[in-house]
Amino acid sequence: MSDTMSRVTLARRPKGAPVPEDFKLETGTLPTPATDEVLIEVTHLSLDPYMRGRMDDVKSYAPSVDLGGTMTGQGVGLVLESKAEGFAKGDTVTGMTGWASHACLPGSELRKLDPSLPPSTALGVLGMPGLTGWVGLHNFGKPKAGETLVVGAATGPVGSMVGQLAKELGLRTIAIAGGAEKCRLATETFGFDAAIDHRAHDDAASLRAAIAEAAPGGVDIYWENVAGQVLEAVMPLMNVHGRIPVCGMIAWYGGSNIAETNQLPGMWRSILVKRLHVSGFIIFDHWDEFPAFLADVAPKVAKGEIAYLEDVAEGLENAPNAFIAMLKGGNTGKQIVKL
Amino acid sequence: MSDTMSRVTLARRPKGAPVPEDFKLETGTLPTPATDEVLIEVTHLSLDPYMRGRMDDVKSYAPSVDLGGTMTGQGVGLVLESKAEGFAKGDTVTGMTGWASHACLPGSELRKLDPSLPPSTALGVLGMPGLTGWVGLHNFGKPKAGETLVVGAATGPVGSMVGQLAKELGLRTIAIAGGAEKCRLATETFGFDAAIDHRAHDDAASLRAAIAEAAPGGVDIYWENVAGQVLEAVMPLMNVHGRIPVCGMIAWYGGSNIAETNQLPGMWRSILVKRLHVSGFIIFDHWDEFPAFLADVAPKVAKGEIAYLEDVAEGLENAPNAFIAMLKGGNTGKQIVKL
Repeated sequence: MSDTMSRVTLARRPKGAPVPEDFKLETGTLPTPATDEVLIEVTHLSLDPYMRGRMDDVKSYAPSVDLGGTMTGQGVGLVLESKAEGFAKGDTVTGMTGWASHACLPGSELRKLDPSLPPSTALGVLGMPGLTGWVGLHNFGKPKAGETLVVGAATGPVGSMVGQLAKELGLRTIAIAGGAEKCRLATETFGFDAAIDHRAHDDAASLRAAIAEAAPGGVDIYWENVAGQVLEAVMPLMNVHGRIPVCGMIAWYGGSNIAETNQLPGMWRSILVKRLHVSGFIIFDHWDEFPAFLADVAPKVAKGEIAYLEDVAEGLENAPNAFIAMLKGGNTGKQIVKL
Repeated sequence: MSDTMSRVTLARRPKGAPVPEDFKLETGTLPTPATDEVLIEVTHLSLDPYMRGRMDDVKSYAPSVDLGGTMTGQGVGLVLESKAEGFAKGDTVTGMTGWASHACLPGSELRKLDPSLPPSTALGVLGMPGLTGWVGLHNFGKPKAGETLVVGAATGPVGSMVGQLAKELGLRTIAIAGGAEKCRLATETFGFDAAIDHRAHDDAASLRAAIAEAAPGGVDIYWENVAGQVLEAVMPLMNVHGRIPVCGMIAWYGGSNIAETNQLPGMWRSILVKRLHVSGFIIFDHWDEFPAFLADVAPKVAKGEIAYLEDVAEGLENAPNAFIAMLKGGNTGKQIVKL
């Protein structure tokens, strides 16, 4: 067992899209677990769009990463040494390890994983992204059989969960994804009724026409994780009493892709005239629903009834580039870094 | 009994704020009620901001008024002749009479009024505006004791109902109104904890500072019936898990007062980060709640526990000018036309 560890820190705050120079790979001494703590060797790290927000020095629902601090993130790993009750060397656990090869965390902040499922599923389909889709669809999408759902970034770990759950409930599901390959995966792997390649459309009007064709009865639920042109395309297609769970807005992160006209009055008018319900939510408010989620979804994953895709980058040193590519839509499924 | 009637028609569609030339006063022959119909002599007519929307030729939740057609509106009147079961000459009734001295309506579309209350209350505090405040606050505002509510147009019939109901439920209530006199009425007549004169503030930042001072714990419910600068002022003050019932947007009717910058990305970010719930609603979806509303509120009005204010214009010929003035905030309470 080596006595050094490595970690990726925030070297500077990005302007718009992050670049490699915003990150720094550093090495240090392996920490020693205090009482009630566990030393973990990280085997898999999760990369998620929300991390982009943490790189800004802006008041948000969670603290920013400090300059020079380790990038925030969830990891899966093996227990090397435990001073916490209930954990033993060799256990597979998950927790907020950060972008690091090793972490010391209190036992109370760790969860032991079911060894019958691949450990990386704890970061995606059975982790935060899966819970996000499950909570948001049920609590804020309020799906009803026969309705139509549109979801952007549809092959991602949240979008694919939303689509599969909605399909199971009897909704017509329409995927929006970037590129022909993702569209193929959306329908073949995740069972969407239709998939629309947003890259094949130059403007919101053209994208809207394609969505309208796939949703002849209009849109009852628009799962918002993209914003920008996709939002602009979908809004006029919303049905009366439609719901918009706002889960993210990747197109607008860093202040990019913002249309010049003031779109708020039109949005406000749509919300009023169509009696829409727009609900922002953050998964950190919903950890208490995790056991119910796991009880519902884990058996379906084990039986193959819910599919998932992972993109795996190799090595902590490649985490920044994988993250940068993911924000540009370079990933297909859940982005994992294997250490 | 005269055999002529008069009505106000839509002479042309307004550009922006309506002007007198957009309306026409016409006379015609008194209609004869068919089977199941009632002939009414209108005594009081309601003027409401939603009517501005009906003057545009835009698809909305309700049909536009046709050019040359009678302006839509609710009236109260006396039954002159009844061919409908349950209605007799001399009854006081309310229904969608339009801006007219007389109307023939099916008995099924009329409601007989409790003679112990002033008939005009059926157009305001115990009519559509009152119901709007009651339904919207309970269903979409979800008020909790100790929270803070901000309402614009606070001496109007909707805003004053919202404020009084919220106060009764133990909320801190903050009125926004135009002018010192309305602010005085807001606190003295309607019991708001604080009242802010938006005309005393040149920009959203200045208005925001005043609201922040009156709402040291932030804003939990923003009752949206104004939009424009008031919305811009309130948004950054919203608390996590805040609610915004969207009931109207009088500042933006006719496409005016629209800020140049695109305010949608900022709004979307606030909705996400603060987990806000924005709910558009239209009272026409909620008529089934009218009996419960009346059972709750009518006794409080009778006992003087819920106050109301009416602005009364005299004569149908003065309805257009009263309506034009009301849209500019010239009224203080519920705008009525007495015929």
